[in-house]
Amino acid sequence: MRDPQYNVTAFVIPSEDAHQSEYVAECDERRGFISGFTGSAGLAVVSLDTAALFTDGRYFLQASQQLDSNWSLMKSGLPDVPTWQEYLVKNLPAGSRIGIDPLVFTATDAVKLESELATVGSFLVPIPNLVDMVWDQQQFHLHNPRPRRPARPLMTLTPATTGRTHLDKIQQLRKDLDLKGVTGCVVSGLDEIAWLFNMRGSDVHCNPVFFAYTIVTQDKVSLYLQEEAISDDVRAHLGPTVDIKPYETIFNDLRAQSGQLKANKEKWLLGSRTNLAMAVALGKGNTVEARSPVIDAKAIKNETELHGIRQCHLRDAAAVINYFAWLEDQLLNKMSVLDEADGAQRLQEFRAEQKGYVGLSFDTISSTGPSGAIIHYKPEKPTASQIRADQVYLCDSGGQYRDGTTDITRTLHFTTPTQYQKRCFTRVLQGHIAIDSIVFPEGTTGYLLDILSRQALWSDGLDFRHGTGHGVGAFLNVHEGPQGCGARPAYNEIPLKPGMTLTNEPGYYEDGEFGIRIENVLLVRPIETRHRFGGKQYLGFEHVTFVPIQTRMMDRELLSKREVEWINRYHAECLEKVTPFLEEGSLGLRWLQREAQPI
Amino acid sequence: MRDPQYNVTAFVIPSEDAHQSEYVAECDERRGFISGFTGSAGLAVVSLDTAALFTDGRYFLQASQQLDSNWSLMKSGLPDVPTWQEYLVKNLPAGSRIGIDPLVFTATDAVKLESELATVGSFLVPIPNLVDMVWDQQQFHLHNPRPRRPARPLMTLTPATTGRTHLDKIQQLRKDLDLKGVTGCVVSGLDEIAWLFNMRGSDVHCNPVFFAYTIVTQDKVSLYLQEEAISDDVRAHLGPTVDIKPYETIFNDLRAQSGQLKANKEKWLLGSRTNLAMAVALGKGNTVEARSPVIDAKAIKNETELHGIRQCHLRDAAAVINYFAWLEDQLLNKMSVLDEADGAQRLQEFRAEQKGYVGLSFDTISSTGPSGAIIHYKPEKPTASQIRADQVYLCDSGGQYRDGTTDITRTLHFTTPTQYQKRCFTRVLQGHIAIDSIVFPEGTTGYLLDILSRQALWSDGLDFRHGTGHGVGAFLNVHEGPQGCGARPAYNEIPLKPGMTLTNEPGYYEDGEFGIRIENVLLVRPIETRHRFGGKQYLGFEHVTFVPIQTRMMDRELLSKREVEWINRYHAECLEKVTPFLEEGSLGLRWLQREAQPI
Repeated sequence: MRDPQYNVTAFVIPSEDAHQSEYVAECDERRGFISGFTGSAGLAVVSLDTAALFTDGRYFLQASQQLDSNWSLMKSGLPDVPTWQEYLVKNLPAGSRIGIDPLVFTATDAVKLESELATVGSFLVPIPNLVDMVWDQQQFHLHNPRPRRPARPLMTLTPATTGRTHLDKIQQLRKDLDLKGVTGCVVSGLDEIAWLFNMRGSDVHCNPVFFAYTIVTQDKVSLYLQEEAISDDVRAHLGPTVDIKPYETIFNDLRAQSGQLKANKEKWLLGSRTNLAMAVALGKGNTVEARSPVIDAKAIKNETELHGIRQCHLRDAAAVINYFAWLEDQLLNKMSVLDEADGAQRLQEFRAEQKGYVGLSFDTISSTGPSGAIIHYKPEKPTASQIRADQVYLCDSGGQYRDGTTDITRTLHFTTPTQYQKRCFTRVLQGHIAIDSIVFPEGTTGYLLDILSRQALWSDGLDFRHGTGHGVGAFLNVHEGPQGCGARPAYNEIPLKPGMTLTNEPGYYEDGEFGIRIENVLLVRPIETRHRFGGKQYLGFEHVTFVPIQTRMMDRELLSKREVEWINRYHAECLEKVTPFLEEGSLGLRWLQREAQPI
Repeated sequence: MRDPQYNVTAFVIPSEDAHQSEYVAECDERRGFISGFTGSAGLAVVSLDTAALFTDGRYFLQASQQLDSNWSLMKSGLPDVPTWQEYLVKNLPAGSRIGIDPLVFTATDAVKLESELATVGSFLVPIPNLVDMVWDQQQFHLHNPRPRRPARPLMTLTPATTGRTHLDKIQQLRKDLDLKGVTGCVVSGLDEIAWLFNMRGSDVHCNPVFFAYTIVTQDKVSLYLQEEAISDDVRAHLGPTVDIKPYETIFNDLRAQSGQLKANKEKWLLGSRTNLAMAVALGKGNTVEARSPVIDAKAIKNETELHGIRQCHLRDAAAVINYFAWLEDQLLNKMSVLDEADGAQRLQEFRAEQKGYVGLSFDTISSTGPSGAIIHYKPEKPTASQIRADQVYLCDSGGQYRDGTTDITRTLHFTTPTQYQKRCFTRVLQGHIAIDSIVFPEGTTGYLLDILSRQALWSDGLDFRHGTGHGVGAFLNVHEGPQGCGARPAYNEIPLKPGMTLTNEPGYYEDGEFGIRIENVLLVRPIETRHRFGGKQYLGFEHVTFVPIQTRMMDRELLSKREVEWINRYHAECLEKVTPFLEEGSLGLRWLQREAQPI
């Protein structure tokens, strides 16, 4: 890493790409390439003599297995573990030159970090990406040469699926810009662009997005696309008002804007996810930073989208039910030897049979026994474990459909769970039911609801180290903001609103033993309450996931009357709604009928 | 208010005194004097042509009744209502000179406000208190002349009550100062000083505090007292190491320090409640602002204090039970005509019979029917309403005892409540039980627990406009920080810790009809859970208030099995613990025995 040309003490390698994507294309997996740690969240700092990898509770186990002895694992969130920013300030020598690639850092983060570093006389040095240099140089020696940036064909969506035309969405964005008193904005989030233009791609694994940037002003819209992705179909869909330009040219266009903005003292909105390189191109003082209005607009699903979300979840439930029935049959009747990856593969096949199926929404977590305690486990041949009928099996999976995105976790035992496993499962279930059942006034945030999913676990001294839930896109990314339910302070800034989505996924994980998680997708809906104190609207959740929650794993003694009623009502809904999607006499239908029995 | 001498556009009048007391001596009731609004929380802004009074949800009704037509009531917390800071920025002309009395503003607030005002070119002008000038000048014309500052005799406490000597507490404070890297500190909170020196006073109504300031350095302790309060007993108690000085001389002493600090580049800690005048006296750059370490130390009650708190609550419960039994007898059997103030008076007499009684901890809220919806109602002759047996009666009261401070609310109906009143009461009770029963890991804040007290109310579209609870002093102020349970962001900074106190007081208020509140005092205690995930200690609450919660007001249909068990267990505890404090054959004992019957 010593590069005399840049003379930096350390180089920071975040997970994100130039669009601040959570999941990135292979060519952007710099942190994975340099560290070996493949989880979705993490950040590496490589200095002249140290290498540190920061990740959160979901990944402690996975990272400790994947990192070699060159690396120190920094368990973010544990007491006495510094944040990576604190580490740069306190653990590196004062007066350090710290290299960053301005394409993969947001302007907001860079400014904040710079002021923290200034306290010890250190500073940020924007340089070309050193990891790319290593990766590109050594590609002939390594078994993992750096792939090219993908530019796969684009899919266009009609208002029959999206509920609105892209021109309508652009008009709304212009109104938002006007309200904020800015002349224009840069949209760089890939899911924002896909949503805004009613287009989808497949450049990022499991995320139906494509590489692009957008500039929107009151009289102009420019969409920057990789040339290989531009087709006549795309041109026809976008129409004459959208100016299509080559992907990389946005930086020149922004630099060209810079002078005009300064002269007229106008400002542009930079979404808080916009990278530092763009902020620099537009010029200091010419920008206002705020959460992109596209993120807020996208989060509220319209009735057409909600209809699609409900529909695709029924077909997805049928696929999951067929898979669980098949798996049980294989393990108990056919005595098959199957590993976790075989299971994931079979589940994908069941999903692929469903109408509107496009792909997976994330790599299937198919995990038996101890693998279940690795919160974001991905089974891979040849290390995947054999699925055993006498262990807890946790399966977290989802599909992309043309009418929506799914995300579901169920935890099963094929024979007899221990009393302890049942108790843990029931505590998780009680948390799940508490979230599902809550009624709350408008203005309430997911941050405040988080405790409801933990309360039952806490009563036994148990807890889980991840949030309760995240937003889900409509045929878009499976993780979508700005809302969420968990301890992140940012979630306390976002009141839940009708039309938002949220997963409800409390869990419990016993390292080396088993993992439990129960996850449904919820829609935020208005609720008619008996009263309306202070004239406020009350809200609640509608669940759209309909796969039985295994009653064999429940400890009936712990459940209240109201919880039992919830379980029986939920299972009656599963039976009613999913039966039409299962074949008469099939294993799946029989499994559903058995599992949906009232307790 | 036009005072050409100071040439200000507006003058700001907070509720607090020079010690940032929540409850103040009469001579410091400037906001009450100028506006007529007597609630405990509020702030007035008087400009050349407007007068605005800001207060929160507890006081909307009371303030609207007390303010005359000169005043605009600003309902803090409602949508579109500016904070008083926003009001100064947006509603006053840009470039305004805004007068403040530096004695009643904290340095922290003044700095923050100044930067906000700077955005419109306005600024703060520290001037003598204009309200005092009006009040003092007109005293011969008004029926409420400004009283003198009280300087009542001081009471000294031994370690048998406090658990620690004042010298031990000062030693701990010195260690805290050392850890924070400061040379000395100013302690200006009256309850902090009372706690630190194991002394009590009665300068502020219902708050056993006395006017004083303190300076603590590694080698010196100075206590600034009003001369009339200094006695031989006080001198003997404080001992030779505490330097006793006249109250007003602290400002000169701080100015004298200023030069020395600058020369040695040392800093002093200023508690975030310290006033601007002190910060100015010590000099810019010589101070560090933080929450006073005395506040944090005081919040954790030691075993001696906890013992005293438990004991005084039993005697207090006996007094409240005797009162409720008496009141019921008067209303139903004696057919007496009693008003709310008569009730409060009789309750005070019952408390005064108890061992260790010193006084009330706040003005008794004795409220019938519509008065109950005024959250901090204080009945006063001749406006107090007649207590009617066919209305909901809400009584919130507390006592100061030499071994502790109490705060209890019960809501009763003497005949037949409506179905709606029962439903509301039961929803409030369910919130109360949820808080009482919660088990949570160390690190959890009261901010996060707040939702538990609202969840049942929300399910019916009901809510209440105040926090769930506050800390309570040990024979000190009935409102004590830093912890609390409610929506104030500051509460999210303070994890609940063993030894802390917290009230549990959800409510429901129907304007013009009735008020419901159920309040116990809780102690934070370690809980032995089945497991300890991540090695964390789990915590929970011990209730120390033992007065039956009226079962007649409960809607049995709404209660879960576990809630019914809680109620029966609680009532069995009341019976067991309070019976020894009631006279054989008394009305009170018979009332307790009847009210504690299981449901």
